[in-house]
Amino acid sequence: MKQTIPGLSPLPAQEPDNILLAHGSGGRMSARLIESMMLPRFGNPELNLLEDQAVLAVPGGRLAFSTDAFVVRPIFFPGGTIGDLAVNGTVNDVCVSGARPLCLSASFIIEEGLAMADLAKVLDSMAEAARAAGVRIVTGDTKVVDKGACDQLFITTSGIGVLPPDRRLGAAAIRPGDAIVVSGTMGDHGMAIMTTRKGLSFASSVTSDSAALNGLVEVMFRASTAIHAMRDPTRGGLAATLNELAAASATGMIIDETAVPVRPEVRAACEILGIDPMNVANEGKLAAFLPREEAPKVVEAMRSHPLGRDAAIIGRVTAENPGMVIMRTALGAERVVDTPLGEQLPRIC
Amino acid sequence: MKQTIPGLSPLPAQEPDNILLAHGSGGRMSARLIESMMLPRFGNPELNLLEDQAVLAVPGGRLAFSTDAFVVRPIFFPGGTIGDLAVNGTVNDVCVSGARPLCLSASFIIEEGLAMADLAKVLDSMAEAARAAGVRIVTGDTKVVDKGACDQLFITTSGIGVLPPDRRLGAAAIRPGDAIVVSGTMGDHGMAIMTTRKGLSFASSVTSDSAALNGLVEVMFRASTAIHAMRDPTRGGLAATLNELAAASATGMIIDETAVPVRPEVRAACEILGIDPMNVANEGKLAAFLPREEAPKVVEAMRSHPLGRDAAIIGRVTAENPGMVIMRTALGAERVVDTPLGEQLPRIC
Repeated sequence: MKQTIPGLSPLPAQEPDNILLAHGSGGRMSARLIESMMLPRFGNPELNLLEDQAVLAVPGGRLAFSTDAFVVRPIFFPGGTIGDLAVNGTVNDVCVSGARPLCLSASFIIEEGLAMADLAKVLDSMAEAARAAGVRIVTGDTKVVDKGACDQLFITTSGIGVLPPDRRLGAAAIRPGDAIVVSGTMGDHGMAIMTTRKGLSFASSVTSDSAALNGLVEVMFRASTAIHAMRDPTRGGLAATLNELAAASATGMIIDETAVPVRPEVRAACEILGIDPMNVANEGKLAAFLPREEAPKVVEAMRSHPLGRDAAIIGRVTAENPGMVIMRTALGAERVVDTPLGEQLPRIC
Repeated sequence: MKQTIPGLSPLPAQEPDNILLAHGSGGRMSARLIESMMLPRFGNPELNLLEDQAVLAVPGGRLAFSTDAFVVRPIFFPGGTIGDLAVNGTVNDVCVSGARPLCLSASFIIEEGLAMADLAKVLDSMAEAARAAGVRIVTGDTKVVDKGACDQLFITTSGIGVLPPDRRLGAAAIRPGDAIVVSGTMGDHGMAIMTTRKGLSFASSVTSDSAALNGLVEVMFRASTAIHAMRDPTRGGLAATLNELAAASATGMIIDETAVPVRPEVRAACEILGIDPMNVANEGKLAAFLPREEAPKVVEAMRSHPLGRDAAIIGRVTAENPGMVIMRTALGAERVVDTPLGEQLPRIC
């Protein structure tokens, strides 16, 4: 018998008296912090949707607006830096709404004593990522705090995108019968950070997938305009993303474990660390929900793009078990994929 | 003879090998960091203007877009919290472009262990400030870092505003002959933080002026549509703002010291600490540049608004001494008002 624990059900205990690392994990503690502390105070139609970006009606059309703070440690890691992560993460939060990213702001909190050469390296990677994504960094802010008051460098980016009129995506548009598509291998970014932090030299080939997905999104829309929802599965991994969307759309989801693409080196590192790749952060992947009959041509189009070469249909949306995500394993068994309370490792992004 | 040291002239020494607190001060070290590190990498027409917000052309009109990180210490101070400061600071950066602030994003970096009650108090003050300003907080992000990796709580807000078609403000529009107007007393916020941090109990009546200026800006535009430029003089105080604008507009500025409004308790605290109120941060004041003949009616209108009661014409823009700000003192002497290299105290906002 399956357990009936939807991913975002209320946690048993009440909110603790102090902030825990788990509150920033992207898991259930994060969700409750937002629900108990933010929504009651700030609630408004845009925020209440709890999408990764707000869609705003402005004269002449609709904008997508998103923000993310980046506190990843270390600031340089295999496959990226805190700088390209900050650009790509916000570009992705904007473009998975269907919007075309227009520009970014960048706000720096720098620890006194940071090597100017390290700052230069981070800024170079930001500039290169912005160029690759075709967005401009149009405004910014720089604060310096005394030594010990922050850990090297934190960057917050915010992004604005323009939504074409015919694109109306969101969790509420997900329908039973929809195919669930991912754009590539799961868990690369998180495992790159974990293996670096834990000094696992055998896993030196694991690199972050940090990349901007707006080009891939345009390729997808050229193949089909019937995409219902997209998300980039970052903190908490694909498990957290699917659970959030299952809860928000009051649908169930069934995933075929063998269909989920995972790099062999990431799978090996996950097995050694006892971690499910479904729970590991990505920074250059998206999950998409669209009518079953549209999925093959969209996946084919995605595979023609460098960032979608490993795109795959991994499951489907069901009317049964609303709010639950179920994995059909390689052995034919079924298990509930829950959202972790917290994360294995803080400061993954 | 006057010294010819424009506020933003190149500093004599080259950029140091490590980030200094002065790089975040809003003074000349900050300006050079942006010029030497950011502009060469990110340069684009919006960013290169170095205004406190970017103006973006989007379908249907123009938007103002701004961001600021808030790292003030302590997070609670007389007259405000880091939360209302984060709302008001970004609302002000948006509205001094002439734009009507529409919404904000809020990104939190929280130190593990922060008391939930303190977070609640900060969020309450943000919600109240947003209500007072008539803006919605529509999207956000929360990261938690390990104890010791940040100092309690940092907040980055970004804001979007809509620019009415007839408002085209900017440093480039400042003209010789323009009157220079300030909306009220100078130095309140910075001295509230300084006297709190230094434990000067005699100065307990000094409170921050943290407030959103968008209502006042609308009052000003109803009185006159001929406003050329506005800025909110935060880090570095009015001195830094005037020097930046004098350099950017290639004009000179003459200020009448006796006309600059300063609260007696702020003046007293400044004298004891040996600080010029012109160099002290404000968080609820603006400086405006507009044709001399329009100034009296605009100031009169400002005085009818609670946040403009002490509005005053403090000086004028000149064709002479481009890039310089000169103060005519109470004794009739003249002195150059320079931008400080760094700030007296870090983490003022």
